[in-house]
Amino acid sequence: MKFIEGGVTAAKGFKAAGTHCGIRQGRTKNDIALIASDVACTAAGLFTKNQVKAAPVQLDIKIIKSGKGQAIAANSGIANACAPNDMESAIAMQKAAAEALGIDQELVLVGSTGVIGQPLPIEPVKKGLKELAGMLDESPEGSNQAAWAIMTTDTRKKELAVSFMLSGKEATIGGISKGSGMIHPNMGTMLCYLTSDVAIEAGLLKKALKAACDVSFNRISVDGDTSTNDSLIILANGMAGNDLITEENEDYATFANALTTLCTELARRMAADGEGARHLITCTVKNTVDEKTAETLAKSVIGSSLTKAAVFGCDANWGRVLCALGYSGIAFDQDKVDISFHSKAGSITVAKNGKGLAFDEDIALAILKEDEVVIVCDMHNGSSEATCWGCDLTYDYVKINGDYRT
Amino acid sequence: MKFIEGGVTAAKGFKAAGTHCGIRQGRTKNDIALIASDVACTAAGLFTKNQVKAAPVQLDIKIIKSGKGQAIAANSGIANACAPNDMESAIAMQKAAAEALGIDQELVLVGSTGVIGQPLPIEPVKKGLKELAGMLDESPEGSNQAAWAIMTTDTRKKELAVSFMLSGKEATIGGISKGSGMIHPNMGTMLCYLTSDVAIEAGLLKKALKAACDVSFNRISVDGDTSTNDSLIILANGMAGNDLITEENEDYATFANALTTLCTELARRMAADGEGARHLITCTVKNTVDEKTAETLAKSVIGSSLTKAAVFGCDANWGRVLCALGYSGIAFDQDKVDISFHSKAGSITVAKNGKGLAFDEDIALAILKEDEVVIVCDMHNGSSEATCWGCDLTYDYVKINGDYRT
Repeated sequence: MKFIEGGVTAAKGFKAAGTHCGIRQGRTKNDIALIASDVACTAAGLFTKNQVKAAPVQLDIKIIKSGKGQAIAANSGIANACAPNDMESAIAMQKAAAEALGIDQELVLVGSTGVIGQPLPIEPVKKGLKELAGMLDESPEGSNQAAWAIMTTDTRKKELAVSFMLSGKEATIGGISKGSGMIHPNMGTMLCYLTSDVAIEAGLLKKALKAACDVSFNRISVDGDTSTNDSLIILANGMAGNDLITEENEDYATFANALTTLCTELARRMAADGEGARHLITCTVKNTVDEKTAETLAKSVIGSSLTKAAVFGCDANWGRVLCALGYSGIAFDQDKVDISFHSKAGSITVAKNGKGLAFDEDIALAILKEDEVVIVCDMHNGSSEATCWGCDLTYDYVKINGDYRT
Repeated sequence: MKFIEGGVTAAKGFKAAGTHCGIRQGRTKNDIALIASDVACTAAGLFTKNQVKAAPVQLDIKIIKSGKGQAIAANSGIANACAPNDMESAIAMQKAAAEALGIDQELVLVGSTGVIGQPLPIEPVKKGLKELAGMLDESPEGSNQAAWAIMTTDTRKKELAVSFMLSGKEATIGGISKGSGMIHPNMGTMLCYLTSDVAIEAGLLKKALKAACDVSFNRISVDGDTSTNDSLIILANGMAGNDLITEENEDYATFANALTTLCTELARRMAADGEGARHLITCTVKNTVDEKTAETLAKSVIGSSLTKAAVFGCDANWGRVLCALGYSGIAFDQDKVDISFHSKAGSITVAKNGKGLAFDEDIALAILKEDEVVIVCDMHNGSSEATCWGCDLTYDYVKINGDYRT
């Protein structure tokens, strides 16, 4: 398996485009994207667990039940959630994309991200989608423009693809994602669109997507807020020519592994580009009775406002890490816990058997100044482990969110 | 019932003092407090639910089981948690206070707040407690000095007292509390010391304390971090001369009501003085099937980083409120929810039946500029309600916590 260029257009038979249609006045950034396969695809999707669901999410949940799809239309700027005529707008967007592409409306998935509660201006959306249908591009540039179109407060595009061999054929999975604020693990916490040329049955596609999501997107948090619009969708068009995957055989394992690798790296990039973030915080909790326990503990650490602020200040304030483990809801013996900090600049153990060690503050500072800071908590109570990802809490997070609507 | 001056020394037979003993070098702020009753008291306490408990909390949990106490010694600067010799230091602190006061060691409760993981310098503590025993003051000034001594990043002292009549006698409950960061509702999330001259049995004292805590301190959050040191303790010495309360009669109801009023006001002040806070955020969720449902929904709103940042920016971004209700774990019909903002400057309804209303941004801004912003969510699904309190997320929160240890 290797990483390749091209994001959502890397797999055979997929094209994409993005443009500025004018959803939010006064901005010239791309705000609408279209992704389409040459042929109908097997489709799977995972959506927000928030009780309040945006109209495009409600619509996609119905569409995805068929296990089929061919195109995705998505906009940024307005979330099309809890707004007047939100469902009408989502359906109009779906219809406009279907007409522009000349395909069945039931094969079009839609997505929106942005401000909640404001109406989606549907005329620019319709005009934009018509234009995009004529601009679809199978080169990496098509993916690039689409990735830009779904960004909100993101500072970096997230696109990635991997290729691998399946029953003697080269196969590919690629994707684009966005997510910077309102990010908290609860099944696909963001917009992420994946495309693949693999031939696979819908049930197995969904199973692989769920498994990949559980150890990637569901293990990141920026701010503990689970959005109303989170969507993770994969379209697989079968054009790789591999033997159709109909059981959990070796090909399934290869595909699932590639999908997990892709999702994990996209998730890491999303956490690293959390609103205002200066550091990616990776927390590995090890030696627990089971993986779920390790995951719950690690999530508590990366979700702790105080730990996040300490990393922003490059302060090895491990007491906050131990405190966060303590309020995770998991029972453990505080006198068994070791805590260490790691980065490119080195490693330092700051607590042993639940008590602080004297450590060199200069070394700790050097470690914490790096872009990625790894916190390892050894619980000495089993042999399972899990890793979760978050980011630091900065002035810029407050700035971005203190004045987001205007 | 009326509010009176004097905090922890308002009730008959209680004295207090605070001074600077030098726990943290280079600071001259009071860092140690002593509160003592002239006679042994009935005592009750509630402590952090964090799995990791500071040594003084572990010690107090044992002491309080007897239902008796007479004095409280507390320091700020060092949390005496997860540090070398932490339990030895807690016991040494208890012993020093007992010797200075000439009372049984088993009647002394101890508390610490500050940095986790660093050892408590015990010599300054011993010296400080000896001095304090000679300085004990029954005037409001004694309470004032003690309140100052337990503050960390707090900007305002929290002290309060109420007086009321019980079986023809005037009775009083007073208290001091601190808590600014690492504040999240999970049973007594802070240090709070209450004193009363009421005569009441230990079991009923604990019952009244638990009931008061559940609707006050357990309904506030500053940052979602539940501390390792949270303690809420009440000493009742019986000197009011009321008939001993041995059952849930009218006197019990009067006492419990006064205690709840006191705790609620202290909790509100704690939230208002959250680290870096500029606004107190009060969220009332009404018309739910039961009170617990309303509480869970309201807690989710006051805990939302995005809602907190919006209030800091005086931005009536109600979509974040609805989003937070949605990820609370409570099922509801999003098309039934109304949301409004209120303050001294007026009221404005921003969403009706789950959809945004057009509203006057200038009026919204004026409402949100006030010190206390009240968010009311009407779920239209029952007749219960609950109120929770939090504060906004500001640059100063990040600043305070990005560099707290140094």
